[in-house]
Amino acid sequence: MLTNRIRNAALERRIMSADKAAELFATGMTVGMSGFTKAGDCKALPDALARRAREDGLRLSIVTGASLGNDSDGMMAEAGLIERRMPFQADARLRREINAGRVMFTDQHLSETVEQLRCGNLPPIDIAVVEAAAIHEDGSLVLTTSVGNTASFVEQARKVVVELNLAMPLALEGLHDIYTPGARPAREPIPLTSVSQRIGAPVLRVDPERIAAIVITDSADSPSGNLPPDAETQAIAGHVVQFFSAEVGAGRLSPALQPLQAGIGTIANAVLHGLLESSFNGMTMYSEVLQDSTFELLDSGQLTFASASSITLSAGMNQKLLDNVERYASRLVLRPQEISNHPEIVRRLGIIAINTALEFDIYGNVNSTHVGGTHMMNGIGGSGDFARNAHLSIFVTKSVAKDGAISSVVPMVPHVDHTEHDVDIVVTEWGLADLRGLAPRERAALIIERCVHPHYRDMLRSYHRRACAAGGHTPHLLGEAFEWHQRYAATGCMRATEAATV
Amino acid sequence: MLTNRIRNAALERRIMSADKAAELFATGMTVGMSGFTKAGDCKALPDALARRAREDGLRLSIVTGASLGNDSDGMMAEAGLIERRMPFQADARLRREINAGRVMFTDQHLSETVEQLRCGNLPPIDIAVVEAAAIHEDGSLVLTTSVGNTASFVEQARKVVVELNLAMPLALEGLHDIYTPGARPAREPIPLTSVSQRIGAPVLRVDPERIAAIVITDSADSPSGNLPPDAETQAIAGHVVQFFSAEVGAGRLSPALQPLQAGIGTIANAVLHGLLESSFNGMTMYSEVLQDSTFELLDSGQLTFASASSITLSAGMNQKLLDNVERYASRLVLRPQEISNHPEIVRRLGIIAINTALEFDIYGNVNSTHVGGTHMMNGIGGSGDFARNAHLSIFVTKSVAKDGAISSVVPMVPHVDHTEHDVDIVVTEWGLADLRGLAPRERAALIIERCVHPHYRDMLRSYHRRACAAGGHTPHLLGEAFEWHQRYAATGCMRATEAATV
Repeated sequence: MLTNRIRNAALERRIMSADKAAELFATGMTVGMSGFTKAGDCKALPDALARRAREDGLRLSIVTGASLGNDSDGMMAEAGLIERRMPFQADARLRREINAGRVMFTDQHLSETVEQLRCGNLPPIDIAVVEAAAIHEDGSLVLTTSVGNTASFVEQARKVVVELNLAMPLALEGLHDIYTPGARPAREPIPLTSVSQRIGAPVLRVDPERIAAIVITDSADSPSGNLPPDAETQAIAGHVVQFFSAEVGAGRLSPALQPLQAGIGTIANAVLHGLLESSFNGMTMYSEVLQDSTFELLDSGQLTFASASSITLSAGMNQKLLDNVERYASRLVLRPQEISNHPEIVRRLGIIAINTALEFDIYGNVNSTHVGGTHMMNGIGGSGDFARNAHLSIFVTKSVAKDGAISSVVPMVPHVDHTEHDVDIVVTEWGLADLRGLAPRERAALIIERCVHPHYRDMLRSYHRRACAAGGHTPHLLGEAFEWHQRYAATGCMRATEAATV
Repeated sequence: MLTNRIRNAALERRIMSADKAAELFATGMTVGMSGFTKAGDCKALPDALARRAREDGLRLSIVTGASLGNDSDGMMAEAGLIERRMPFQADARLRREINAGRVMFTDQHLSETVEQLRCGNLPPIDIAVVEAAAIHEDGSLVLTTSVGNTASFVEQARKVVVELNLAMPLALEGLHDIYTPGARPAREPIPLTSVSQRIGAPVLRVDPERIAAIVITDSADSPSGNLPPDAETQAIAGHVVQFFSAEVGAGRLSPALQPLQAGIGTIANAVLHGLLESSFNGMTMYSEVLQDSTFELLDSGQLTFASASSITLSAGMNQKLLDNVERYASRLVLRPQEISNHPEIVRRLGIIAINTALEFDIYGNVNSTHVGGTHMMNGIGGSGDFARNAHLSIFVTKSVAKDGAISSVVPMVPHVDHTEHDVDIVVTEWGLADLRGLAPRERAALIIERCVHPHYRDMLRSYHRRACAAGGHTPHLLGEAFEWHQRYAATGCMRATEAATV
């Protein structure tokens, strides 16, 4: 079996246990780990490294593609292994350590991490730990369900630890397109001009001498935690489909739309799911992660091709894919996240970006990350890479959270991830506000009437009316701007007492 | 004389007065005007259009490259001509109308306006009004001291009005490189891979049939309002030069640095001026505007080439340039602002971006535009195009304003133009904070110790210490976050009473 997976006999001598491989690491090192939204992450080393942290106090900086699966982030954090972490995470236990100031987390645009590493703005990667499905005779790696930052980690690291995952089918070979940009300032254009184009190699080249250890694993990726569509997410999808139809009617979009990006999570997945009911066809995706909805649209024939950096599916859909890789292979490609999210490509292709807001304000500034303006949820992820450069930048959210105690539309967001410059359209289950070409006062009027839950509409109308009376291009009352957030912290509800009775 | 300037006899019939040309316009039209940071703007039509506004109520949407000179924006605003205005302005009287809500201003990344026009996200340009130095036989225009958005306005407009400015030397021909990207999603890469490369045409092609009017003018651009370097701006420049030296020492930059961008204004100009005292050489600029300091560095030989979209100089330096265009021509190129500021190129070249902050907060979020969080100053300009994609994104400001009554470093900025993700380095006259790779709590500690005026340091230390005790990845006290701004509004000083006596 392993001769199929390790096609270089000399490399078989590097096979060792995860605990043995963990001895290669020393406190102070920066480690680049494969893994992007729980796909293609290492399954054994995180556990072995956490054990060393508990036993001899090992401390590392951990850089990944995005979030890891298998509770690895939480386990490593609780063991005290993680001194620094970037560029994204989505784990409750790691989040707790970050918000307590015990783990130094750097929240980054996902296209930028390896660029910053490459030019020395960040400390170099000492060891890369990457999951692979096979190793070629020349050392080249066949990656698995994500590419993430793996290619650049391997390019830049002194040593490489490979986790060879026998649960990943060999049919994955050929799915990947590995391309990394050259050094600056004499870099060539990235030659990609269409969603389905391949510009690199199907395998990740690595000098076998640099492979310091091979650890054998045999376990699946963690399943996606997306919830099924509900009445609100279906309403959001309906507004988006109706808007696209109007754009097609006005001649600004074709029935194939333009390459679609959708952020990770339940709401963005539901919006794509909603396209199943639409008449659009010949659609393509150029996204960072492919979720269940992508495969539903490939199956319906409406989607002709999907490019991303990662595939994160429910357990059932994941098994279906792994059993039928050949059926999808000609319509899929996985790229480094630097390329899937690259501003150059996002702008060139004219992508329609659909991302989820934690909350947005009456002027269309978006908070994607910080609960109450202070506590990190997951990270900005790729939303900034896409929103800034998209043909259309759309943010979606339910109008309220916690049974109505929180309004997702507020007077002013207490943390800004996306400024109003980068937000064209906002959508809740109540409606869609098309903000293109509008000045802030006009944006506010539209957002309040179209997107806000009726329980909060009068409160926002009042805030905006009084702020406008005080004047300014972007009227605000600084003494009141965060009153809703403070009231929620004090009383458990953003509504003022009199409004709560409405 | 005019046969030299209008090389198509048939077009001479289109020569008319500005008042006559102004009759082409009707209320509701969108007009694209040349002009970028007071350079290459139209000198006659704004006045004629303002007259029509006063006489018969003409109302227009005015789209430019950036700010206009000759008080045109103020005059048009006061006449009631301007219904909408984008993407940038820098005029006190127009600003007053914007902040009163009487002019709808859309503040945009300067690389994006024509992209948004091209794909129909903004209403189309009806008439383009552009300054030229000459018209070729085939209708092609020789532009003057800026390119701005002019090429795309002319490409997209139904009619073109040319202001032929006899004060602009014919030697300007050849300085421009006119390239506009194709339609999406089938667009090719922008082929530019070095600062000095020419990828387009030296003239702006236009079908002579579309030239509806030619108005003859004879006046210079308005001079730059930059102040000379002072002790604080010299100290800021010193910190930046020292930082660059350390980067060269660490092998992360060569002595030629990387292509430089510097924002418009006194402080960024002073930083470049400071490079005259440095040992760096073989430097290049890839910026949106060239100021006096660029020509000083070209004269010193340290700068080998400068690319931008506009040239905005003091009166003396401007005359020197216009008298010696030939001497500089081989080391200069002017491009459309879509190309000078394009994310694709900024990222590819690895630009060092130096922009001015109005204020920044302890986590490195930058407010570039809104006084008190509400009142528009000028606009975000190109700073976002550069900061997001730069190799190094540097923001500079003096630590205090209004004789110390305002601290430029605050607990939380009440308007965010650049999020902490896009800010690597902040500098005041007190010092430089290198924020690369740091988590928010670390960023705050460094900013407070390095950049804050001593009169405000204890207040910020106290705020940050108490916020950290309350917890979070980005600790804040929402009830206090804007207290400094509110205190300034109430008392004329941000300092607390007890601190004022320090």
